[in-house]
Amino acid sequence: MNPNSGTTHDTGRSPRLLVTMGDAAGVGPECIVQAFLRGHLQGAVVVGDLGVMRRASDALPARPMLARLESPTDVDTAPPGCLAVWTPPGLAEGLDRLPLGRADARAGAAAACCIEQAVAAIRGGLADALVTAPIHKAALAAAGIGFPGHTEMLQALSVSPGAPLPPVRMMLANDELKVVLVTIHQSLRSAIDAVTFEAVLQTLRIAHRAAASWGQPAPRVAVAGLNPHAGEDGLFGDEEIRIIAPAIEAARREGIDAQGPYPPDTVFMRARDVPGHAGAFDLVVAMTHDHGLIPVKYLGVEHGVNVTLGLPFVRTSPDHGTAFDIAGQGRADPRSLEAAVRWARRAVTTP
Amino acid sequence: MNPNSGTTHDTGRSPRLLVTMGDAAGVGPECIVQAFLRGHLQGAVVVGDLGVMRRASDALPARPMLARLESPTDVDTAPPGCLAVWTPPGLAEGLDRLPLGRADARAGAAAACCIEQAVAAIRGGLADALVTAPIHKAALAAAGIGFPGHTEMLQALSVSPGAPLPPVRMMLANDELKVVLVTIHQSLRSAIDAVTFEAVLQTLRIAHRAAASWGQPAPRVAVAGLNPHAGEDGLFGDEEIRIIAPAIEAARREGIDAQGPYPPDTVFMRARDVPGHAGAFDLVVAMTHDHGLIPVKYLGVEHGVNVTLGLPFVRTSPDHGTAFDIAGQGRADPRSLEAAVRWARRAVTTP
Repeated sequence: MNPNSGTTHDTGRSPRLLVTMGDAAGVGPECIVQAFLRGHLQGAVVVGDLGVMRRASDALPARPMLARLESPTDVDTAPPGCLAVWTPPGLAEGLDRLPLGRADARAGAAAACCIEQAVAAIRGGLADALVTAPIHKAALAAAGIGFPGHTEMLQALSVSPGAPLPPVRMMLANDELKVVLVTIHQSLRSAIDAVTFEAVLQTLRIAHRAAASWGQPAPRVAVAGLNPHAGEDGLFGDEEIRIIAPAIEAARREGIDAQGPYPPDTVFMRARDVPGHAGAFDLVVAMTHDHGLIPVKYLGVEHGVNVTLGLPFVRTSPDHGTAFDIAGQGRADPRSLEAAVRWARRAVTTP
Repeated sequence: MNPNSGTTHDTGRSPRLLVTMGDAAGVGPECIVQAFLRGHLQGAVVVGDLGVMRRASDALPARPMLARLESPTDVDTAPPGCLAVWTPPGLAEGLDRLPLGRADARAGAAAACCIEQAVAAIRGGLADALVTAPIHKAALAAAGIGFPGHTEMLQALSVSPGAPLPPVRMMLANDELKVVLVTIHQSLRSAIDAVTFEAVLQTLRIAHRAAASWGQPAPRVAVAGLNPHAGEDGLFGDEEIRIIAPAIEAARREGIDAQGPYPPDTVFMRARDVPGHAGAFDLVVAMTHDHGLIPVKYLGVEHGVNVTLGLPFVRTSPDHGTAFDIAGQGRADPRSLEAAVRWARRAVTTP
C-alpha cells in the first residue's frame, strides 16, 4: 500500500506507468520517444495518438516500433522493444496534421482527453501511476477546458463529481533537493495573503504523509520563512511569528518533524544533499513559488521533477513546458521526463 | 580613476586596503588573523585593537607578528611578515577583556569607531578601499549608534553632514553569479511596495556604473521579475507590466543593456557562469532579498562577497555575521573574508 495513494500495488506484476503525450504541438511527444530510445520507458504506456508519436520521431535519429494497445493492461503482453501506445476512447483523429509549435484547440482537447482517460484507467485499477508530458494553457482554454493546468484537472478527476477536492501541493525535486510549495501560481502579493496557518499546516501534513512513498516515512522537514532573515524576530514582517511558527508547532504536536521557520536564503543550502554535504533536512517547505523553485532550478532543470502530493495516486511530470519554440526539431531534452518516470516508478514500488 | 568611486588610484603605489575588525566579541578578528596566516592580507591594514587581534589568534594554530601603525600610510614601510594594525583615534582600551560571543555596548561602540575612522582615512586619501568584518546589530544599538548596519552608516559617513545620502545597493557575488538587490531588509510585503519605477531604474544605473570597477564596463544585466513566471502577462501580478518593464525600457534608453523581466525561477540558472556553462548575463537584478540571495548562497557561503554599490569608495564584506556561537573557538571560516579582500583589491586596481 502506497501511503501517498489509494492505489494498492500488491499484484505481483510490474507497475504500470501511464505517460500522457501532452500537447501534440509541443515537445512532449518527442521527449517521450527520446526517453524510450534511451531505455527509460520499459513497462510504460503512452496515452496518446499513434500518428503524433510517429511524427515525433521524424527529427530524431531513430524511429521506434510502436505497439497499439487496446487497453493499458495489454502492455504486459506487448511485443518487447516496442513503444506501447494506448489511444484512449474519444481521442480525435488527424492530430498529427496539427501545426507544430502553435496553440490549437484540437491539441488542447486531445491533451485533456488523454489525461481524463489516464486517470480513469488508474482509478479503475488498470494502471498504477501517471506521468504527464507538458500541456499548453492557451490550447486548453481554446478547447473550452475549464482548468488552468494539470494540477487542478487532476484534483477534479481524482474524486467523484461534486465531492470535495483533495488538497494537493506541488513538490519540485532533483537529486539533491526536495521542495514543497505552500503557494504557487498567484501574484507574490496575493501569495503573502495565502500564507495562512491552515495552508502551512496542511502543506506539512501532505508533505509528511507523501514522503513515505519515496522511502522517508519520518522526514525532517525544514520550513522556510516568508520574510528576509525569517523576519528577524518580527523586525522585517511578522508572518513567521503569527502564522508559520504556530503551524510548525501544531504539526510537531501531530508527530511531524517540522523545524523552523528558517531564513529563506540559507535553508536550501543547508538542505542540499550531495556527496560530501549531507543535507540537514529531507525536504524544505517554501512559502512562495520562487523561494522554492530558484534553488531547485539553479543547477539546471534537466533533472527536475514535478510531483503532485496529496492526490490518491502517484503523479509526476517534467519540470518544463511545451517549448513551442523548439517543438519538432529533435532538440528537446528528455532528461526531466526520464527523471519523472524514474520518480513515479520508485514511488509505486516503495513498500 | 575607478568609475565606482571618487577615489583616484594613480599614485603608483600598491593599493591600500583597510579591514575593520568588526565586533570584538565575534568571529571577525579571528577571520582576519586566519586570512593573514593564509597569505591573503598583504598590504592590508587592520583597523582595530592590538589586544583584540592578539586574542583572536589564541585558538588558532599560529600567532602572527603584529605591527602597530601610527597611520594607515605606514603600511608601506611596515616590517614584512607582520599583520599591520592601525588603532584609530578614539578607540577604547580593554576591548580584549570583553566576553566573547556576547552583544556588548563597548564592542558596538568600538566597531563603529573603527568604521568611522576608516572611512575618514579613505576620504582623506590615506587608503583606497574598505573591507568590513561583521558587526552586531544589538551591540551597535546598545552603544547608541543610530544605524541598523554597515550600509546605512557608510552612506552617512561618505558625505558631509547634512548632504543628501548617495543611493546605494547591495550586491552579492561569488565565482559564478553576481546579484544586485532592489530591496533588502524589510518585510516581503513592504518590499513589494518598495519595488517602484525609480527604485528599479536607480538599481540598474548603480549596477551598470559599478560594473566597470570589476572590468565589465558594458554589463549584460538580466532583470528578474517579482511574481511567479514574471507575472505571465499580468495573470499573476502586474508589477512587471506597470513597473519593471518600463524601468528596463528607460534604462535601455540610457544605454544600459538591461533585459527582462525574466521569470525569477530560471534567470539565475541562466546567468550562472561556470566552466562548460557560460552565463547568459553578467549580473542579475533581483527585486527581493531572498530571490537574490537564495541562488548566491545555494552552493555554500564560503566564497560569497557582499559589495556595496554606489558609495564613493569600494567597500566589500564577508557574507556572514558575527557568529557569536563559535567566536573564539578557531572554527570560523575565513574564506568569505578572503574573497571580500580579493574583490576589493581587484576593484581598486581595475583600470
